[in-house]
Amino acid sequence: MITHLPLCSIQNPKMVLLIGGGDGGILREISRHSSVQQIDICEIDTMLIDVYKKYFPGIAIGYEDPRVTLHVKDGKLATTRNAFIKSVPEGTYDAIIVDAFDPIRPDHELHEGPFFELVAKALRPGGVMCIQAESIWFPSLDIEHLTENGVIGFLLCSTEGQFVDFRNPVNPLDPNNSYGVAKEPLKFYNPEVHLAAFCLPTFAKKGMN
Amino acid sequence: MITHLPLCSIQNPKMVLLIGGGDGGILREISRHSSVQQIDICEIDTMLIDVYKKYFPGIAIGYEDPRVTLHVKDGKLATTRNAFIKSVPEGTYDAIIVDAFDPIRPDHELHEGPFFELVAKALRPGGVMCIQAESIWFPSLDIEHLTENGVIGFLLCSTEGQFVDFRNPVNPLDPNNSYGVAKEPLKFYNPEVHLAAFCLPTFAKKGMN
Repeated sequence: MITHLPLCSIQNPKMVLLIGGGDGGILREISRHSSVQQIDICEIDTMLIDVYKKYFPGIAIGYEDPRVTLHVKDGKLATTRNAFIKSVPEGTYDAIIVDAFDPIRPDHELHEGPFFELVAKALRPGGVMCIQAESIWFPSLDIEHLTENGVIGFLLCSTEGQFVDFRNPVNPLDPNNSYGVAKEPLKFYNPEVHLAAFCLPTFAKKGMN
Repeated sequence: MITHLPLCSIQNPKMVLLIGGGDGGILREISRHSSVQQIDICEIDTMLIDVYKKYFPGIAIGYEDPRVTLHVKDGKLATTRNAFIKSVPEGTYDAIIVDAFDPIRPDHELHEGPFFELVAKALRPGGVMCIQAESIWFPSLDIEHLTENGVIGFLLCSTEGQFVDFRNPVNPLDPNNSYGVAKEPLKFYNPEVHLAAFCLPTFAKKGMN
């Protein structure tokens, strides 16, 4: 979902950046999108990569896509020396997927720093970001606070002043022609679950508009 | 969901039977439907009822609806002496909700007996049944087998030869006028989650048509 929600919402995505997601599973899913020409992944944890390649080859298979370039760096600004996102030329990416935060620590430092500003700059106008975020079922969840700070379920954004109709994907995946390196059809994602992803229980709508 | 999915799918439900559900939570939700005139509940476990009344009054509050009649009997046929469902006159109910099976034992005896035939007889033509069923996430789930045997998520049925459009509820709840004995608005159910309940991941569609 973290992959197809954003990539199916824009026409013809070519340049994709993944921050985190070192296991390779999201790479595998990006690989299903035939319009994509370049997939950059910025991951700091090489041991994670090695462990997945050794023990979870079905997930790490994402690295086998020839469009993938691995940047072993910190994706965020905290470690200034390795701040990958800072080095990205303005307007480079059609989509940026962030899978680097601890979902049960929504007040993680990243949410307070200039990280999201840098992501916005790295996107072309009308480009999109998707970030894994909090679950509505997390017991102590303060949804109002989280949405103010930008995290619930998945958060989908586009650059300022650009409307992207995330609910109605303009770029659906052909289920029979989107295997990529996964070599098998999609197991979960389809246009119906895309739609359903935006149907929230009443209690979870509080604080949204 | 087990309550509003069926009751919002038919016009003007008046007679409702709940089999199991002794905790009172489903009664509380049925209570939100102002068209309902009679709510019968058939529960065998009086200790369950007492425990919920003592320790979970917010759930057991469903019993405070004056339309409720408690039948302390076995809802199923296995204990013939107490077979409540067998005693129901043909065509009595607009809706029957079944919350009496162990959801991780889908091959429970009830699924093999004449229970569902008796339920169908107890419903008026075009009446509906909703039963709690298996989760698509249960690890060893054989969806194909379960749908053949009639269990996944919630199973919604109507009587033979009658079409009920469960996806598009004809009888939506007014969120501001459906408190019933709950004395507060719905926290979860709304028309969007009703719709989303029918959006299944690709792997879960296997075996359905």
